[in-house]
Amino acid sequence: MSDGLTIALDAMGGDKAPDMVVQGADIALERYPELKIILVGDEARIRPLVEKTKRLKAQSPEIVHTEKAIADEDKPSVALRQGKGSSMRLAIDLVGQGRADGVVSAGNTGALMAIAKLVLRPMPGIDRPAIAGFFPTRRGESAMLDLGANITCDATNLVQFAIMGQIFVRTVLGLERPVVGILNVGIEEQKGNDSVREAATILRGMTDMPFEFHGFVEGDDIPAGTVDVVVTDGFSGNIALKTAEGTSRLIGQFLRDAFRNSLMSKLGYLLARGAVGQLRQRMDPRRYNGAMFLGLNGIAVKSHGGTDALGFANAIGVAADMKRYGFIEKVREELTNGRLDRPDEQPTAVATA
Amino acid sequence: MSDGLTIALDAMGGDKAPDMVVQGADIALERYPELKIILVGDEARIRPLVEKTKRLKAQSPEIVHTEKAIADEDKPSVALRQGKGSSMRLAIDLVGQGRADGVVSAGNTGALMAIAKLVLRPMPGIDRPAIAGFFPTRRGESAMLDLGANITCDATNLVQFAIMGQIFVRTVLGLERPVVGILNVGIEEQKGNDSVREAATILRGMTDMPFEFHGFVEGDDIPAGTVDVVVTDGFSGNIALKTAEGTSRLIGQFLRDAFRNSLMSKLGYLLARGAVGQLRQRMDPRRYNGAMFLGLNGIAVKSHGGTDALGFANAIGVAADMKRYGFIEKVREELTNGRLDRPDEQPTAVATA
Repeated sequence: MSDGLTIALDAMGGDKAPDMVVQGADIALERYPELKIILVGDEARIRPLVEKTKRLKAQSPEIVHTEKAIADEDKPSVALRQGKGSSMRLAIDLVGQGRADGVVSAGNTGALMAIAKLVLRPMPGIDRPAIAGFFPTRRGESAMLDLGANITCDATNLVQFAIMGQIFVRTVLGLERPVVGILNVGIEEQKGNDSVREAATILRGMTDMPFEFHGFVEGDDIPAGTVDVVVTDGFSGNIALKTAEGTSRLIGQFLRDAFRNSLMSKLGYLLARGAVGQLRQRMDPRRYNGAMFLGLNGIAVKSHGGTDALGFANAIGVAADMKRYGFIEKVREELTNGRLDRPDEQPTAVATA
Repeated sequence: MSDGLTIALDAMGGDKAPDMVVQGADIALERYPELKIILVGDEARIRPLVEKTKRLKAQSPEIVHTEKAIADEDKPSVALRQGKGSSMRLAIDLVGQGRADGVVSAGNTGALMAIAKLVLRPMPGIDRPAIAGFFPTRRGESAMLDLGANITCDATNLVQFAIMGQIFVRTVLGLERPVVGILNVGIEEQKGNDSVREAATILRGMTDMPFEFHGFVEGDDIPAGTVDVVVTDGFSGNIALKTAEGTSRLIGQFLRDAFRNSLMSKLGYLLARGAVGQLRQRMDPRRYNGAMFLGLNGIAVKSHGGTDALGFANAIGVAADMKRYGFIEKVREELTNGRLDRPDEQPTAVATA
C-alpha cells in the first residue's frame, strides 16, 4: 500500500462514463490536493477529457489502457470468468498489487463485489463482506449495512456487520462511541426472525466495547437517526434504501406540482427558492453517493451508475477518507487484538475479556 | 351477515380512545349514511361522547359494555388467553356472530390479528392471512401486503397474497385489471431469495387471470406506483412501509426548517401556503389509515394507534368499502370457482383450465 493517497478509477463504469469519472476526479482533487489518480479505461477517450481539466491535468495522471469493459447486465459469475483485462478488473488489481489504496467504480455492483472479493479477499474474521452507505437523518447522517451484497444473513453475519459498521463511523465520521441498532419489525425483544434475535442477544452480551448497542430499530428510525449504524440483511437493507430514495423523489415531484399550481404559489416559490434549494441540497442523493464495501483487505467504493461528476467526486471522497483515517488498519487491529474476536466462537469470552 | 352495513368499533383501542373512535364514527357517517355503528367499551365513558355528536347520536348506536381492554404491550398469546370479554374481543365476536359486517380497532395489532384469526378463521384456500395497506404514489394509490403479520413467507404464501391483493384492489379501488409485482432487490429473474423466485415462477405460469403479473419490483417502485399491488413478506413490507413514513416525516421537517430560515422564505411560505397545504394533504398519513386483514372470513381493519378522529373515520371507510363492494364474497367466489385454486397444488392445471 502506498504511503500517499492513490485511488484507481474504473473510468468506463457508469451511464455517463468516462466523462463524469474524469470530471469527478478533477472535483475531488480540489478537496483532496494530496490525492493521486490512476484512470483505467480507453486511453483514446480518456486523454482528451483529462486535457480539458485543470487540477487533474496538472498531475498528468497515469492511464492504464484497456478497451474492455464489464456490461451492466453481466452476471457476477460471467464478470468473474470473462472480466479479466476489463477496466473494472484492472482497477481492482491495482489495489490488490498495492499500487493504489482504493478503487472507485460506477459499474455493475454485483460484478464489482464478486471481483473485489476474489482479488482483495475478505479479512480474517469476516465471513461475508457487506455494502454500507450513508443516508441523511434528522440528526445529520447515519450509515446502514448491508445494502444488498448478502440476501440472507445469519446472526454471525449481522454481528460482524455491526462491528465493521461501528468502526467505519468511528473512523470516517469521527464518532466517539457510535450507537448501533438492528433493523426489525418492532423494538420488543421477541420480534422478528431468529437471525435478528440471536444477533441482538450476542451484541447485548458484548460489554466493554467502543460502541453502544441500542437494540432493535424500525424502518422509521432510519431517517429519524435513532442510531448511527443500522444493521440489516441485504434484502431488507436494499429495500429500505430504495424505498427512502423513491419516497424522496415522490415528494420532490409533489412539491414541484404544488408550486406550479397557481400564480400565488409560483410567486411564493420565487421568494422561497433559497429555502427550497437548501432542502434539495440536504436531500441531494449525490451527497450520499458512494457505497462502501466493508470487510475486504482493501478499499472499494461503488458509485451510483447514474451519477454525475459531483456525485462521483463524493464517492472518490469516501474512498479517500477511508484511507486517510486508516479504516482497513483499524478493522484489522480491532479484529486481531482480541477485543473483537469472532462472536460465534466466543461471545462470552469477549464479553468478559 | 347483516343486509345493511354494520361496523363494530373497539372503542377502547388507540392512544386517543374512546374520544377519537366516537368522533371518527360521526365523521364516517357523513360519508356512509347507511352505516350502522356498534360501539364496544366502557359505556360510562362512551355515552357522554356520543351525546356530543350529531349524526351518531341520531342513530342511538348500540353500546356493548365492557370495562376490560387489551393493553398495547400485551403479547398476542396473552391477549388470546386473557382477552375474553375485552372490547377488542367482543367487537370481533360481533363479526363472528354475524351481528356486524366488520370490525375496526386502533388497538394492539398482534392481538387483533391473533383474535381475528381465532374467531373469524382463515378462508379455505388461504394458509396465512395478511395485512394490506394503501400508500400514495405518483400515479394515485397502490396497495401492499403483507405489512407485518407473517415474518417469513414461502412461495405459496406470496402467491396467495398476490391473489388476495388483486381481488382487493379490483373490488375496493375498482381497478379492472390490476398489475401485481413482487418486491425484490432487483428486477432480474435470478435476483432475491427462493421464496420470491418460486412465487414469480408460479405467477408467471398463471394465464387467463383477472390481473397482470409484472414481475419483480424494487423499493423505489413502491412510491413510483409501478404496480397496483406490491407483494412481499411481512418483514420487508413492514420495513418498507415504516421507512417511507419516516422519510416523509423527515422531508416535512426539513421543509419546515427551510421555510423558517429567512424573512424571504417566510414570505414565500405565506404565498405558497396553499400549495404546501396541498402537498401535506396528498401525503397525509390519515388518508391512508386503515390496514386491512385479508384472508379471513370477515372484515377486520386495524387503525394506526396514534391516529385522530379523521384517520379513524378513514379506517371505518375502508371496512365499509370492503363490505359495500363485497370483498369477502368475491374472494370466496374466485377461490372456489376453480380459477384461483391453490397454486401449490396445481399451478399448471390452473393455467390451462
